[in-house]
Amino acid sequence: MKRTAFFISDGTGITAETLGNSLLAQFESIEFERITLPYVDSVEKAEKAVEKINRIAAETGQAAIIFDTIVDKNIRKVIDASNALNIDIFAAFLAPLESELQVESSYTVGKSHSPTTSPNYLARIDAVNFALDNDDGARTRHYNDADIILIGVSRCGKTPTSLYMAMQFGIKTANYPITEEDMAELKLPAALQPYRHKLFGLTIDPERLAAIRTERRANSRYASLKQCYHEVDEVEEMYQRENIPFLSTTNKSIEEISTRIMAETGLQRRLQS
Amino acid sequence: MKRTAFFISDGTGITAETLGNSLLAQFESIEFERITLPYVDSVEKAEKAVEKINRIAAETGQAAIIFDTIVDKNIRKVIDASNALNIDIFAAFLAPLESELQVESSYTVGKSHSPTTSPNYLARIDAVNFALDNDDGARTRHYNDADIILIGVSRCGKTPTSLYMAMQFGIKTANYPITEEDMAELKLPAALQPYRHKLFGLTIDPERLAAIRTERRANSRYASLKQCYHEVDEVEEMYQRENIPFLSTTNKSIEEISTRIMAETGLQRRLQS
Repeated sequence: MKRTAFFISDGTGITAETLGNSLLAQFESIEFERITLPYVDSVEKAEKAVEKINRIAAETGQAAIIFDTIVDKNIRKVIDASNALNIDIFAAFLAPLESELQVESSYTVGKSHSPTTSPNYLARIDAVNFALDNDDGARTRHYNDADIILIGVSRCGKTPTSLYMAMQFGIKTANYPITEEDMAELKLPAALQPYRHKLFGLTIDPERLAAIRTERRANSRYASLKQCYHEVDEVEEMYQRENIPFLSTTNKSIEEISTRIMAETGLQRRLQS
Repeated sequence: MKRTAFFISDGTGITAETLGNSLLAQFESIEFERITLPYVDSVEKAEKAVEKINRIAAETGQAAIIFDTIVDKNIRKVIDASNALNIDIFAAFLAPLESELQVESSYTVGKSHSPTTSPNYLARIDAVNFALDNDDGARTRHYNDADIILIGVSRCGKTPTSLYMAMQFGIKTANYPITEEDMAELKLPAALQPYRHKLFGLTIDPERLAAIRTERRANSRYASLKQCYHEVDEVEEMYQRENIPFLSTTNKSIEEISTRIMAETGLQRRLQS
């Protein structure tokens, strides 16, 4: 049985999507068709949205589910009148917040992301540029400015994690690949030694690593199970010997890897998401 | 007056942060201290969280505000007993969803992000790698595989937007800088001509551009107001002449730029966020 879920917003729709997907994930037996309608910021656009919602309800014989973060009450009223279950986030939560804070909410639209003119935005762009410039050990001379340096074998998840931490939290994240030659040395690469306190290791299940590397370079020594077992063994031994905190990326999303690193290191978010 | 907001989750905390920040943005007159407590997945951890919440309430004489996405009812009960206003997302919305869908929710933890073993995850990593490999016109030979190619003058926001679209939506996004030489030619750069239908232009207020470029290279011709006006004029003329859709990044967050591009081009999300 397939149901339709709408994420409707006067802004980007990201809050409605994030919350809606978290709630829908609790209903694993049902398949959802997901439709995001962002920038619904007038009664006319809301009426168009409702037409679409009602048409799908008529076609499928099933009411849609709406996750809605529209601030304007008049626009919300239009959405509420559709043939759907409306999970109306502001209607549910603004009143208790107003009463606790003893302030009226401002009912202003699209306030939750930092525009290009805010200091927040610049910190974020700086962090993203830092992650790009200091990806994969390309440069090490800026490690003084790094908040954290992720290390690990090739394809264990360093680059996407670095970019995510920069983008989402404004953390200046460098990453450095540990190669076979580094492992043979039985000590930390010289470039990393002055920054030991900033290092965080990633590891991964060797079979998973072999599968990921095979996607990239099938039937190579690089992707072989034997090689992957060898590298992961060596790098984990290095983490333990050198007392470097580490975690496994296997079965974790980029969000989970990033937030666990933040929690374990005590790094504080530089941005409000 | 400063208040404390906690984002508490048995998973990453990202849903609680996203929703909480959207709601708090409606109270502009109040300054919030934000504390995220992720991976609160046992009664013991919840009790520790409550100690912290109550301590802050005692110290500040103000009850905290909690945004909580904990699934387990026993853990939630512990959090609910704290001296705080609890915006309990699952308590508010799971019951109406269960009744509409006529299914019990599974009450499983941390389901909303794709782990490294899902096809979703690989699509995402592929898109991020694509954005990295095809950043700033470095390569053009993979443009066949691109979902979209962002163009614009240096520092108008192409790179962070490309990475965000890849990370958040799984969209393969290339970007290509339009240089003065390109503008002098009075036609599209040859590398772009076969991909005209994939092009999307970014533009920016020249004064804002000058400020951003000044951060990077102060007192240069590159950062001068005159040069920025010239380049923006030329590139906007090119967009119009060549019929390339475009938008201004000025005063927009990366989220807003990205979601507006998705909406205008009709590109569909490849990932559930």
